[in-house]
Amino acid sequence: MKLFRKLISLDEALKAVLAYAKPAETEELVFGDALNRVLAEDVYSPADSPPFDRAAMDGYAIRAEDSFGASPNNPVLLRLTKSQREKGKESKVEGVEIGDGECFSIQTGMALPKGSNAVVMLEYTKERGSELEIFKPVTPGKNVSFKGEDVKKGEVVLTEGKRLRAHDVGMLASLFKRSVKVYKRAKFGIMSTGNELLNPEEAEPYEGEKRIADVNSYVLAGLTEPIASSYKIGIVRDNYDKIKTAISGSLAVDSDSNYYCDGLLISGGSSVGKRDFIASVVEDSGELVFHGVAIRPGEPTGFGIVNNKPVFILPGYPVAAISAFELLVRPFLFAVHGVKEERKRIFAVARKKIPSAVGRTDFVRVKLLCKENEYFVEPIRVSGSGILSSMTKSDGFVVIEENKEGVGAGEKVEVVVWG
Amino acid sequence: MKLFRKLISLDEALKAVLAYAKPAETEELVFGDALNRVLAEDVYSPADSPPFDRAAMDGYAIRAEDSFGASPNNPVLLRLTKSQREKGKESKVEGVEIGDGECFSIQTGMALPKGSNAVVMLEYTKERGSELEIFKPVTPGKNVSFKGEDVKKGEVVLTEGKRLRAHDVGMLASLFKRSVKVYKRAKFGIMSTGNELLNPEEAEPYEGEKRIADVNSYVLAGLTEPIASSYKIGIVRDNYDKIKTAISGSLAVDSDSNYYCDGLLISGGSSVGKRDFIASVVEDSGELVFHGVAIRPGEPTGFGIVNNKPVFILPGYPVAAISAFELLVRPFLFAVHGVKEERKRIFAVARKKIPSAVGRTDFVRVKLLCKENEYFVEPIRVSGSGILSSMTKSDGFVVIEENKEGVGAGEKVEVVVWG
Repeated sequence: MKLFRKLISLDEALKAVLAYAKPAETEELVFGDALNRVLAEDVYSPADSPPFDRAAMDGYAIRAEDSFGASPNNPVLLRLTKSQREKGKESKVEGVEIGDGECFSIQTGMALPKGSNAVVMLEYTKERGSELEIFKPVTPGKNVSFKGEDVKKGEVVLTEGKRLRAHDVGMLASLFKRSVKVYKRAKFGIMSTGNELLNPEEAEPYEGEKRIADVNSYVLAGLTEPIASSYKIGIVRDNYDKIKTAISGSLAVDSDSNYYCDGLLISGGSSVGKRDFIASVVEDSGELVFHGVAIRPGEPTGFGIVNNKPVFILPGYPVAAISAFELLVRPFLFAVHGVKEERKRIFAVARKKIPSAVGRTDFVRVKLLCKENEYFVEPIRVSGSGILSSMTKSDGFVVIEENKEGVGAGEKVEVVVWG
Repeated sequence: MKLFRKLISLDEALKAVLAYAKPAETEELVFGDALNRVLAEDVYSPADSPPFDRAAMDGYAIRAEDSFGASPNNPVLLRLTKSQREKGKESKVEGVEIGDGECFSIQTGMALPKGSNAVVMLEYTKERGSELEIFKPVTPGKNVSFKGEDVKKGEVVLTEGKRLRAHDVGMLASLFKRSVKVYKRAKFGIMSTGNELLNPEEAEPYEGEKRIADVNSYVLAGLTEPIASSYKIGIVRDNYDKIKTAISGSLAVDSDSNYYCDGLLISGGSSVGKRDFIASVVEDSGELVFHGVAIRPGEPTGFGIVNNKPVFILPGYPVAAISAFELLVRPFLFAVHGVKEERKRIFAVARKKIPSAVGRTDFVRVKLLCKENEYFVEPIRVSGSGILSSMTKSDGFVVIEENKEGVGAGEKVEVVVWG
């Protein structure tokens, strides 16, 4: 068994982990159910959008030429088409053709009648019976949304790897694209280990005893859910056989079981202490790819493969588990689920020195401050991965690469802000 | 009926809307179900966390004084406590007291035995039978996480209005805080109006016909869901009575119905055209607070109160509906649901002039570019609120206030990035 004292760098760990990131399977979903899912195909437009030249404003479709010279004092006089004179303004546009000096009352979004090439806005007109005064000239094309102006037939409108936002789903709707191929959400089991842990949903309310709650089940599920699906396995005691059974049970090849997972995030017991069976179990059940990464917090992080499935060994302390999740698990989940977009980062000026040792990557919780169109950042507190309040008080985090000896006051850094 | 041509400013509209934003009801949730919900109370810690002085590293609990002078060449020699010598290292810490020259093998997170005041890391020790060589001195408090160091009893750990992220839920777990009070998600009905609209889930795949899909049902539900719950009412035809029945039905005082909503987002038919019944229906059914806002796109936006409930009248074109949502509906929903945090903005330098007219607020879709720790931004395209691809191609938006005549190239602007 490799001890975590032989640390590998974050870059090496990331490379090793990503080498095992097999793309998730895909599934076909009705577009209305695909919000926030990641596209597994490029989406081509089956047609021009808009599908015809249409009015971009409420008003009257006319031949632009007929309006030339119009002014408030010298309005041009047009007459409604025969169809609208006889059947009223609700009459259909189909079959209508605008002749010399004619106009057609039109609503935003309606197809332009044949012969017309512009829309004069309602505001610049006045109806007098079946005649219309126009107070302002329009140029050809004015207030018209042309066929294919938004999207051309055959054009790629959304690309593989895009997470679908509300307006992307709207685009699919507008193209009558009933279903799309997206990446399936893999199911990751979340397992906490430790003899000391209590289930905080079952334990009685706190009364001053010396108790330690299972925090990681909630934190890791919460971090996983926006990307993959999570399954809470719960607390497993520090016992080689119990942990081995729990791992092999949830990573069984038979996918009928409820407990069946595509991968595992196991926390606790990942350092070198005597009770730390997880790395040994992983090694004995499959392959331990590495154990120990030069990140802080999160050093005792490991990764292995059991039944051809990924197993992340994460630290027991929640802050260290979150650090390892952000630095290693999230990139892995992004790769598996085809997420191409990086999370948006904010650039901010360090108000104080952020210390960091060369040779390890630091995950620093920070507070953001905004002053006159500029962000400033300061580290919350460098000590102790047991300090969960360093997370709850933070706005996000800064990663200080292993070849950097901290960040000086006044230097600009990238901040990942909590979503 | 007020016509939208009498535009009010975005500030006035926002003030009017927020005056009707009654805080949502609250509910008590098990903390594990409260992810992403907004706290409706300050959460106090019922106890110190950690609840006792504990080891922050794997190693040996000692009296720091005993290690003074230790070096690789001159290790200090300590002996395991009687309990560990006799019962092994798994023996409990309870009742143990460290005497002169004694040490106690300890795991990260375990309570410190009485008499000890520091932990020497495993890495700086070597066991020889029941004796221990220490190669490096530690100061008192070294590698110890003190009682209350994370959170003190009675301290406010999470404040009202905070949206609970994974680490916040973890904090609740760590405090054995079984349930918390959060704001209930109000239920907003989403209604599309228009004779031309087809339901894109029911229509046959596109075959070149001139068809217009109902896009707003999907876009508005997608924008609403992260904050409130949405209920798709579907398409209602442009008919005064049908719209009136649909509005009064979903805003009925009797809350037994499935269709019962706490508010409505109605899109389409909100401009001044003849088919635009919504504003009249709202006025006749309750109060039309305003109709027409100096925003672009999104001018024909209105707001009213029916059965004491909010009704937003949104433009039919999706881009205009999104603009009105972001500028008016989102702040309303945030106020209702107690969301105190603003969305994080990015500051970016305009690469091109972004034109805008004084007297109206512009909602400009933009593309972000990142170069050497600096963001740059350019407008996607200023034309047409019918151009949905201006949304799908964008990274976010810039709001140009009504008193600004655009943004010059080189100026810094705030960008709201799509979540």
